[in-house]
Amino acid sequence: MAKAPVLTPQGEDFPRWYQDVIAKAELAENGPARGTMVIRPYGFSLWERLQAAMDDRIKAAGVDNAYFPLFVPMEYFEKEAEHVEGFSPELAVVTIGGGKELEEPLAIRPTSETVMGTYFAKWIQSYRDLPLLVNQWANVVRWELRPRLFLRTTEFLWQEGHTCHATEAEARDFAVQILHEVYADCMEQVLAVPVFKGRKTAAERFAGAINTMACEAMMRDGKALQMGTSHELGQNFAKAFGIEYLSAEGNQENVWQTSWGTSTRMVGGLIMTHGDDNGLRVPPVLAPIQVVVLVVRDEEGAGEAAARLVDELKAAGVRVRLDDKVDVSFGRRATNWELKGIPLRIEVGPRDLKEGEVTLVRRDNGEKRQVAVVAVSAEVPALLDTIQADLLATATKDRDDRTVDVTAIEDVAAAAADGFVRIPWDSVGVEGETLLGRDALTVRCLQRADGSLPESDDEKGLIALVARSY
Amino acid sequence: MAKAPVLTPQGEDFPRWYQDVIAKAELAENGPARGTMVIRPYGFSLWERLQAAMDDRIKAAGVDNAYFPLFVPMEYFEKEAEHVEGFSPELAVVTIGGGKELEEPLAIRPTSETVMGTYFAKWIQSYRDLPLLVNQWANVVRWELRPRLFLRTTEFLWQEGHTCHATEAEARDFAVQILHEVYADCMEQVLAVPVFKGRKTAAERFAGAINTMACEAMMRDGKALQMGTSHELGQNFAKAFGIEYLSAEGNQENVWQTSWGTSTRMVGGLIMTHGDDNGLRVPPVLAPIQVVVLVVRDEEGAGEAAARLVDELKAAGVRVRLDDKVDVSFGRRATNWELKGIPLRIEVGPRDLKEGEVTLVRRDNGEKRQVAVVAVSAEVPALLDTIQADLLATATKDRDDRTVDVTAIEDVAAAAADGFVRIPWDSVGVEGETLLGRDALTVRCLQRADGSLPESDDEKGLIALVARSY
Repeated sequence: MAKAPVLTPQGEDFPRWYQDVIAKAELAENGPARGTMVIRPYGFSLWERLQAAMDDRIKAAGVDNAYFPLFVPMEYFEKEAEHVEGFSPELAVVTIGGGKELEEPLAIRPTSETVMGTYFAKWIQSYRDLPLLVNQWANVVRWELRPRLFLRTTEFLWQEGHTCHATEAEARDFAVQILHEVYADCMEQVLAVPVFKGRKTAAERFAGAINTMACEAMMRDGKALQMGTSHELGQNFAKAFGIEYLSAEGNQENVWQTSWGTSTRMVGGLIMTHGDDNGLRVPPVLAPIQVVVLVVRDEEGAGEAAARLVDELKAAGVRVRLDDKVDVSFGRRATNWELKGIPLRIEVGPRDLKEGEVTLVRRDNGEKRQVAVVAVSAEVPALLDTIQADLLATATKDRDDRTVDVTAIEDVAAAAADGFVRIPWDSVGVEGETLLGRDALTVRCLQRADGSLPESDDEKGLIALVARSY
Repeated sequence: MAKAPVLTPQGEDFPRWYQDVIAKAELAENGPARGTMVIRPYGFSLWERLQAAMDDRIKAAGVDNAYFPLFVPMEYFEKEAEHVEGFSPELAVVTIGGGKELEEPLAIRPTSETVMGTYFAKWIQSYRDLPLLVNQWANVVRWELRPRLFLRTTEFLWQEGHTCHATEAEARDFAVQILHEVYADCMEQVLAVPVFKGRKTAAERFAGAINTMACEAMMRDGKALQMGTSHELGQNFAKAFGIEYLSAEGNQENVWQTSWGTSTRMVGGLIMTHGDDNGLRVPPVLAPIQVVVLVVRDEEGAGEAAARLVDELKAAGVRVRLDDKVDVSFGRRATNWELKGIPLRIEVGPRDLKEGEVTLVRRDNGEKRQVAVVAVSAEVPALLDTIQADLLATATKDRDDRTVDVTAIEDVAAAAADGFVRIPWDSVGVEGETLLGRDALTVRCLQRADGSLPESDDEKGLIALVARSY
């Protein structure tokens, strides 16, 4: 059966495909104010499960959640010079409250370094109060001129971790730990999105940081998406906000800080890493619905058999949904579940049932297989593990196949037309970075030749990873 | 050992006690902008666990989470007359975005009926799309002139549920179900805070609702705190926003709606229901730390014995924390854990250990008991259940003892000096309500004589519950 495409094919127009799949899978839509986003229930269920997985890892790193206010007095921004320069063009400002003009306008937080810094200065007295490890889940606002759902919205949801340490080395180690054990681990193990981990160049650093590290993923159109960043703030904010502690040796010292964030943007990365012309493909670990059991036609006990299967799968710990809406055509329902990317579809129809079988259809590769009804609930958990692993393996292979090495900066633009380019950082440098910018290319991060994370920008033999990006 | 009070005693100055306990237990403090609040890690851990318990019940009611924008165009408010009148004095308004004056100012949501209504109108076509059951966890802003931490802050965290139904009866039933099965159940079973459930009078209704129902709790100073509300919106917003569906009979109809909310204010209710002169008392079901194991002095194996006990309790599913900071005095540490309201303290000291025993100290009633080390991990879970039940029973008895019946409105003010007053609604009426207001008294809700929820304001024999309130 040839189906009319429900989505614009990726090969025809990738941005249009992205818009289509977000609308048709009922993930999100534009909010009433320009650049804002309504996250619909199915889209939110993906975010909610991702958030829980990330939160588990954040807590395992010893970090406590807290909440700081949405409103930040404008003067707070002005205390750290690079920070205000970086953020002031993006601020939304409240000037009226309770029917009156405010004496002091309030910025909506674009990030919370300044307000947290103010409180950290009060809370920290001595080395015994360190490390201070805090995270918050919150909405932030950065005015966007070219908004795009999930990827770049004026208001977005995120977590921002902020920590204070006694020494520079401890702060650096913690920022690196977050990058690997919290961010990359969650992206790869939950989202099945492989990421390159590296250092940002000075031009791409967070406003006020001394080092920004990032997880960079490749989308199916070959463009890069920054999935998360972890920063060493050095003592910049500690000096600006007076965050000091009495050391064990009796000296008054500034703390060393980190901050790190991931956002609803990761949902955009999920869509563009795994989505295909039939819709989303959601990895089983993330999927709010891992298996949908479809009644093909409710004849000869198919309805009852399907309901029984659902109970068995639930008992086996599978997140399963029954679709017995047989007044809607089977094809339309199957298409809809494919759009939503449910990892596994089980079709229960009278014909198969006569043989004691049902049909399992994998969303990731379309593979169909007849399985004995009695064997289903034992087989499904392992099959879901396989699907999870295959999605990560496929995305990793695709990314690596499209990552090429060049040595001369003149060759980068052509080589980056369809993916990432690795080039010695010595062949690029700050001037080369500006040149690449003219072709809408950026250095996504610096890595060692073996792909590991450098400890400084000055290491010999660093490789720049260059790409078009979101 | 007579301790100097760490808190202002409740009997001396209850509001001061409230401020003290919030500061000393490190729950929260004022934010930089007037009326805003920083929720510190321990305070947030209480909210986070309460949020999870509430979210479970919301999901069990079949409601999906979603997210709608912070910014609401001003014109949206003007579509529903009572709603705009109720909320416009409290709005915070963004007039500058991305460095420019906005053509259309944006309100920060004080609640999301208007923005959700706009989308519901797009999403709902036919009776097959109903009921639509949506909830969001979000921050909202209502300008406060007399802010108080947790109870009344300009920005607060809450959940707001919004549902659309085909019939008035279904909407009403759902609003009632939320009040009982989600709100009252969570408050009583998790927070151990008993609540009276009733209807608000017309004067106290949510702006735009046709019926507001509330859970009202009594604080230890005899004042009432509204812990949560569930509203029938009738068709007011449906008409204002054009939320229509094609019925099974082929008619175009407006939906019937509900909305319902609970917030960080519940944490204030928790503090003021159970807190005593030594600090918080946190019910075990809620407590992030249920048991603290204190090493009295690390001699003769006390440290190792305490660590072993912690492992055993963890294995028994108890949320337990080890305190082996013996360089801080035992008294100071014990006082600190009392302040934080940890339900059960286990003191492990060399003297008791010689007898193979440790000391268990209940936070709720101060009861101390020697227990054999080998019996602890088997006894603790049941003891935590007892503490949970006792906290609810004590709060219920205290509330009921301080709830008195009167028949004449002249007697209300004196009778309400120390608690709640029940008086026939016929003896109050709209005029009486105004009179009570002069004594800073309000009708908290209307109930039937047996305490159950009335179906309308016009029922015969309704009782008004009157009190001073937060």
